[in-house]
Amino acid sequence: MKFTKLHGLGNDYVYVNCFEEDLTGVDLPELARRVSDRHFGIGGDGLILILPSERADFRMRVFNNDGSEAKNCGNGLRCVSKYVYDHGLTEKATFTVETLGGMMTPVVSLGEDGKVEQVTIDMGEPRFERAAIPMAGIPDEQAREQTIEVDGEVFTMTAVSMGNPHAIIFVDEVRDEDVTTYGPKIEFHQWFPERTNVEFIQILNRKEIHFRVWERGSGVTLACGTGACAAAVAASLSGKTDREVTVHLAGGDLMINWRESDNRVFMTGPATEIFSGVYQGEIPYK
Amino acid sequence: MKFTKLHGLGNDYVYVNCFEEDLTGVDLPELARRVSDRHFGIGGDGLILILPSERADFRMRVFNNDGSEAKNCGNGLRCVSKYVYDHGLTEKATFTVETLGGMMTPVVSLGEDGKVEQVTIDMGEPRFERAAIPMAGIPDEQAREQTIEVDGEVFTMTAVSMGNPHAIIFVDEVRDEDVTTYGPKIEFHQWFPERTNVEFIQILNRKEIHFRVWERGSGVTLACGTGACAAAVAASLSGKTDREVTVHLAGGDLMINWRESDNRVFMTGPATEIFSGVYQGEIPYK
Repeated sequence: MKFTKLHGLGNDYVYVNCFEEDLTGVDLPELARRVSDRHFGIGGDGLILILPSERADFRMRVFNNDGSEAKNCGNGLRCVSKYVYDHGLTEKATFTVETLGGMMTPVVSLGEDGKVEQVTIDMGEPRFERAAIPMAGIPDEQAREQTIEVDGEVFTMTAVSMGNPHAIIFVDEVRDEDVTTYGPKIEFHQWFPERTNVEFIQILNRKEIHFRVWERGSGVTLACGTGACAAAVAASLSGKTDREVTVHLAGGDLMINWRESDNRVFMTGPATEIFSGVYQGEIPYK
Repeated sequence: MKFTKLHGLGNDYVYVNCFEEDLTGVDLPELARRVSDRHFGIGGDGLILILPSERADFRMRVFNNDGSEAKNCGNGLRCVSKYVYDHGLTEKATFTVETLGGMMTPVVSLGEDGKVEQVTIDMGEPRFERAAIPMAGIPDEQAREQTIEVDGEVFTMTAVSMGNPHAIIFVDEVRDEDVTTYGPKIEFHQWFPERTNVEFIQILNRKEIHFRVWERGSGVTLACGTGACAAAVAASLSGKTDREVTVHLAGGDLMINWRESDNRVFMTGPATEIFSGVYQGEIPYK
């Protein structure tokens, strides 16, 4: 099976071009588990299939390294966008991609080598009502710069939904040990019935945010696209940053633009092809 | 740069065939660090170069994922052996390989598909004197089934050198939490001036040993070839096993034969090719 490995800010997947590779009858969750194994397989955060679509230019399916299917993946969508353009599956700079989480319309921009360097994705509108997060309290009210206490430590937090819940924690200095200590406690805080992603942000100036994330169910990761969007929105709401900011994540930078005209959040970031290869392990069939 | 990824019991390296690829002028430690990165690179425990030799059939150079050069690597040598045979660089079932740690003479055995399935390596003679380990105490004396105390817990231990130090701990049941709790404490025990690898072994019957390792400087790993040899030797010395045993490691099985005729230890184990590919990242030059 031919594949290509790409990463978006260190979030790395094995990509298979299903316009060329026929995976009919394959046990995809098991294949995802096998190829994701970092010692016995190709190694990656999961497997992403690039497929034909009846409703869009392309379709992507995202399998996590545990075999479960994800609705979407911002880092993955940037990589799919780079792949389809660089490998000649499209000549358009913008196209539609069908995902389990809905239709996406990435826009690619090219580097000097004529290959995709950055991809912009419309991440939709943020929501703030507690019912939308979801979060305990009066359903229509927002949780904006409110205090939250964990183990006697008091933080200032704004809750944002980008389709998934985010608790944005404003700090004077982002410390990795705080992320691992308080991240899981806020994730499981009684206020969040479906748990929450937790982002610790430090505002550097009106155009830059230092950012570290504790992802719901995953812990510390190198990058979280929806988290970067939520952080930029929360920072802008606080009045301390502009609506367009660069978010410095552990895996690299994302540029977030919370557009005033239509309230939508646009995320621009890199995608990198690392290597292509031929997998020689056994393909599991159903 | 073309490469192939192979693993021996989950100990996975990026292999480059330098009969075809010219790495003249390349900053090899930096290349090793880059390709080893599991998110931004190819991913692996390190980089192994397969080179021509003036003194042997082949030469191998092993770079760890931190860029340092290793003297040798048993799992890596099995993979090099599989590579050179399966890819037609030799038609011999045994050949010589020059390493920083000395000359090696692996013997390959083939599977039904005509490809290398198992590789046997002469690991040399074990040594037991404390001076050879090295270990505190009377230099010429051995530490055989002696008690060692850590944090009030008493273990039975035999010290074996296979060119590097091993403290073989006999236990009734191998528990992962004991490996992580007591492994580092024994590694840094005052008796071992150069620290030590620590192996927890449970004798299943005269021909099988359950094995988990705490490697000096690396912690828990899936497999340690010299450790498996030392464990088999210590078990045989105790009279509880034969001289030929199967060692069950976390990454798979190794067959160890401590040959009576010449006191040498032979290790037989698998090597697996996972995928081959073309690396698209930047090659760092000196």
